[in-house]
Amino acid sequence: MAKRYPNLKNPHLKTNKSDFLYHINVNVADTDNPTEIREKFGDVKVVCMGGTKNRMLALAKYLRTLLGLDDKQELVDIAEAGNRYAIYKVGPVLCCSHGVGMSTMSVVLHELLKLVHYAQCDDPVFIRLGTSGGVGVAPGTVVVTKEAYNGYLRNEHEIAILGKKVLRPAIFDEQVAKDLMTCSSYQRDYEIVWGNTMAAECFYEGQGRLDGASCDYTEADKMAFLQRAFEKGIRNIEMEATMFSALTRHVGVKAADVCVTLLNRLNGDQVLLTKEQKEDFEHRPFTIVGEYIKKAVMPSK
Amino acid sequence: MAKRYPNLKNPHLKTNKSDFLYHINVNVADTDNPTEIREKFGDVKVVCMGGTKNRMLALAKYLRTLLGLDDKQELVDIAEAGNRYAIYKVGPVLCCSHGVGMSTMSVVLHELLKLVHYAQCDDPVFIRLGTSGGVGVAPGTVVVTKEAYNGYLRNEHEIAILGKKVLRPAIFDEQVAKDLMTCSSYQRDYEIVWGNTMAAECFYEGQGRLDGASCDYTEADKMAFLQRAFEKGIRNIEMEATMFSALTRHVGVKAADVCVTLLNRLNGDQVLLTKEQKEDFEHRPFTIVGEYIKKAVMPSK
Repeated sequence: MAKRYPNLKNPHLKTNKSDFLYHINVNVADTDNPTEIREKFGDVKVVCMGGTKNRMLALAKYLRTLLGLDDKQELVDIAEAGNRYAIYKVGPVLCCSHGVGMSTMSVVLHELLKLVHYAQCDDPVFIRLGTSGGVGVAPGTVVVTKEAYNGYLRNEHEIAILGKKVLRPAIFDEQVAKDLMTCSSYQRDYEIVWGNTMAAECFYEGQGRLDGASCDYTEADKMAFLQRAFEKGIRNIEMEATMFSALTRHVGVKAADVCVTLLNRLNGDQVLLTKEQKEDFEHRPFTIVGEYIKKAVMPSK
Repeated sequence: MAKRYPNLKNPHLKTNKSDFLYHINVNVADTDNPTEIREKFGDVKVVCMGGTKNRMLALAKYLRTLLGLDDKQELVDIAEAGNRYAIYKVGPVLCCSHGVGMSTMSVVLHELLKLVHYAQCDDPVFIRLGTSGGVGVAPGTVVVTKEAYNGYLRNEHEIAILGKKVLRPAIFDEQVAKDLMTCSSYQRDYEIVWGNTMAAECFYEGQGRLDGASCDYTEADKMAFLQRAFEKGIRNIEMEATMFSALTRHVGVKAADVCVTLLNRLNGDQVLLTKEQKEDFEHRPFTIVGEYIKKAVMPSK
């Protein structure tokens, strides 16, 4: 089958002689012939992303064992000198932290997209493994996102480019989502749903929480809003899905969002899990994505 | 003089018996009488915020020496168990990391505002010490922000609350900015300007960079946009100022933004500093804010 390299959507990249991916501290010295980058990253098939460095290190360790890769080798944070994000490489998988929200994720996403472009990775898939607030689902439910909605409950991502409003569709790759849903056939005591995800710009007011530093609405207002979200098929709220789906789709790279819900927002705002419960919940996307990688990317394992 | 405690703008806080500040891992067990929180944090006068944990640790060490506080005591990251942000306390100053962009900063800002509210801090000042791209100023110039502009070059912060558009003025406290400008009287080989700051949602397309994964405009389009920004008095571009000024002003807490510029965007997009230059530049806001704290907050030192 013909290889499918990410081409991106930026003609300027062809004219730059070198490209320093500043925030992840990767230097592409010769963009015409980046042999070193291709040797290091050309085998990458899946780029996993998640909020915290610790979670991405845990994911890297989990995948290393699951995929039967050498677990004696120390995992090195490739982006450490960049001082903002962490990146671990485990065979054909990168595990990258992105922080909280669209802005911080978009910085590292742009640079990772350029990385898989220069490295000529073959049809790579970007998957976010996150935590979220559930809407009408039991805590611990995992939501694989179909469509992403912004804070106005519109299925689009808005970005100001050169002072003008640009709207991009915020839809994840349907086949990857279906593959993620169907490969999760192992025994488990929680639900996995294919639903819509709202991405808010703010954890407190932007998600209708009552416990922020500012709150100008009532509990009834909040419940009415969450009900409207539920009626649009929204089953969880996080802070990245619209930007993530819109940018990857815009540049022609496949992506998926797999988030566990830590609470049901229809029942309250505060997260009330024990440390052990939270760790158990956070591991659920690992299991699903791990199975997906085993079946779809490393079928021989 | 009568004390001026932060009252915030959320009537719901009065009805919650306890409040777990989730992302910074601070538990306010009894919101009616949070004696432990008042003992620990009641003396806080200045909350410094910056992007990375390393920079905030460096700031804490710098202030500890500058303010003549005990430098034998190990600096402890109060928020470490929260796994997302770092907070160090140095006498009456908190040094807190916030990540890249408004979303991640708003999470910790809401929780820090609640912290100074519960602790009954007396008229605390929030100051962001950041890095930025300059617009028409030499690299290394420090910009103290007057007004913040969003990606549409409007002097406001837009936030979607319960699906509705809410616009808030994005203006920093004039007196704090003036105090910061006038206290920086020591000898130095760089400029400090009181100018406007654009806060973008995106480092690449949102700031008109030509080197992102996606770019649908020309260099001439970009230069025309930066020129428009310059004509509005914008001297630097970062990713937090509109949210930061708008939320603090909305809840009645003073704030300032002090950012060094790492490059002049009118001359290019890539940051071309050596490690030593970057460290020197990043230290400039430390010196200015350190002087401010010495004069305004700890005049006896």
